[in-house]
Amino acid sequence: MNIMNNNLLYEGKAKRIYQTEDEQILRVVYKDSATAFNGEKKAEISGKGRLNNEISSLIFKHLHAKGIDNHFVERLSESEQLIKKVSIIPIEVVVRNFAAGSMSKRLGIPEGTELPQPIIEFYYKDDALGDPLITEDHIWLLKAAVPEQVKTIKSITKQVNPELQHIFEDCGVRLIDFKLEFGLDAEGRVLLADEISPDTCRLWDKDTNEKLDKDLFRQNLGSLTDGYEEIFKRLGGISSCIK
Amino acid sequence: MNIMNNNLLYEGKAKRIYQTEDEQILRVVYKDSATAFNGEKKAEISGKGRLNNEISSLIFKHLHAKGIDNHFVERLSESEQLIKKVSIIPIEVVVRNFAAGSMSKRLGIPEGTELPQPIIEFYYKDDALGDPLITEDHIWLLKAAVPEQVKTIKSITKQVNPELQHIFEDCGVRLIDFKLEFGLDAEGRVLLADEISPDTCRLWDKDTNEKLDKDLFRQNLGSLTDGYEEIFKRLGGISSCIK
Repeated sequence: MNIMNNNLLYEGKAKRIYQTEDEQILRVVYKDSATAFNGEKKAEISGKGRLNNEISSLIFKHLHAKGIDNHFVERLSESEQLIKKVSIIPIEVVVRNFAAGSMSKRLGIPEGTELPQPIIEFYYKDDALGDPLITEDHIWLLKAAVPEQVKTIKSITKQVNPELQHIFEDCGVRLIDFKLEFGLDAEGRVLLADEISPDTCRLWDKDTNEKLDKDLFRQNLGSLTDGYEEIFKRLGGISSCIK
Repeated sequence: MNIMNNNLLYEGKAKRIYQTEDEQILRVVYKDSATAFNGEKKAEISGKGRLNNEISSLIFKHLHAKGIDNHFVERLSESEQLIKKVSIIPIEVVVRNFAAGSMSKRLGIPEGTELPQPIIEFYYKDDALGDPLITEDHIWLLKAAVPEQVKTIKSITKQVNPELQHIFEDCGVRLIDFKLEFGLDAEGRVLLADEISPDTCRLWDKDTNEKLDKDLFRQNLGSLTDGYEEIFKRLGGISSCIK
């Protein structure tokens, strides 16, 4: 298989996606671009692409091992991975174990408040609309997904959350919240997709509450790559937490 | 019963509420104040209080006749009514039959688009937070209501919508959307409360799409009282649509 086929299918804020010779397999190249606030804040951060690719590869592999099917096929290089081709469902699925970010602002709940149980939220993937919070009725109205797909998405999400909590717990990291995306494969099955990385998770050191995620960039709190490197190191880059 | 007891219990943007000698009965005085955009836009509009009181009284009475229990007891005067005392649940329940207002902005659906079926949305009544859209999980998290109460609220709301649609349809008015509020009575039962008026409904003339509701004020489209007077006249002020 010629994985270096240069047919660029899609370029997003953080990734470029290329077709391979296998119609159902794509190559993802993680970029060094950092963006926040719907693209209003931008920077090139050397090493970010590598770290997100490495971390996302480790996590997706771990989820496979735990029986949670996902689009990940294999890590190709420091900043590349192969994935199964899916058609992305235009919904961001956010799981919150602690209040932070937009939930704290929206509901007036102080950042870091532990929630009595995890909350799942849906956001409509639409840059022009600013990725608004939506309800399940809105998902149906927007034809973003049918109710049966939403049911599957929620079911997979509820499996992923404790797995991620365990991985990070074992590394001394608190999983505050995270975002998942899903796609439909060639058979129309809902498949966990996109990435799981410090770009898409809020990760705080369990003892110090130090932020080790994209809030470092959003809030100018320090070196983004130092935080991501720490997560990678703890997860398995050097001394593995992922067995 | 001394209904003129002057113990002011609450003053909101559009109403003053007084205790009566009956512990369980309150007197509402509808004010002539108009506010919009979370209180940013304000005006005194002579006649508005009277029209909302008259219209709300007609509608609540009609809902009673249709078997939909609510807090309305009786119309006292042009701008006053008696209501049952309830503890208001801090949720605004919005029913949308057509896209308009914040839904059009949030989801990018053009104003006036008929929805394939009515959509119920919940907003958290909190001026400081700007009355944000919330999900049923948020309602639970905020302890605004328990799931059983939300179920009752949805069930009553689904009864109210077709009744209101029929009333207005018979008057040549299209019910675009409306907001309901609910309270808990002395026995802890969920009861339809607040008001139903052109302040809380979007009402468009069926033939001309002329707006006959608070958007006249929000969007500086013309005389608010002309629109409300037209609704009152059609509903029953002169030639009754409410039989």
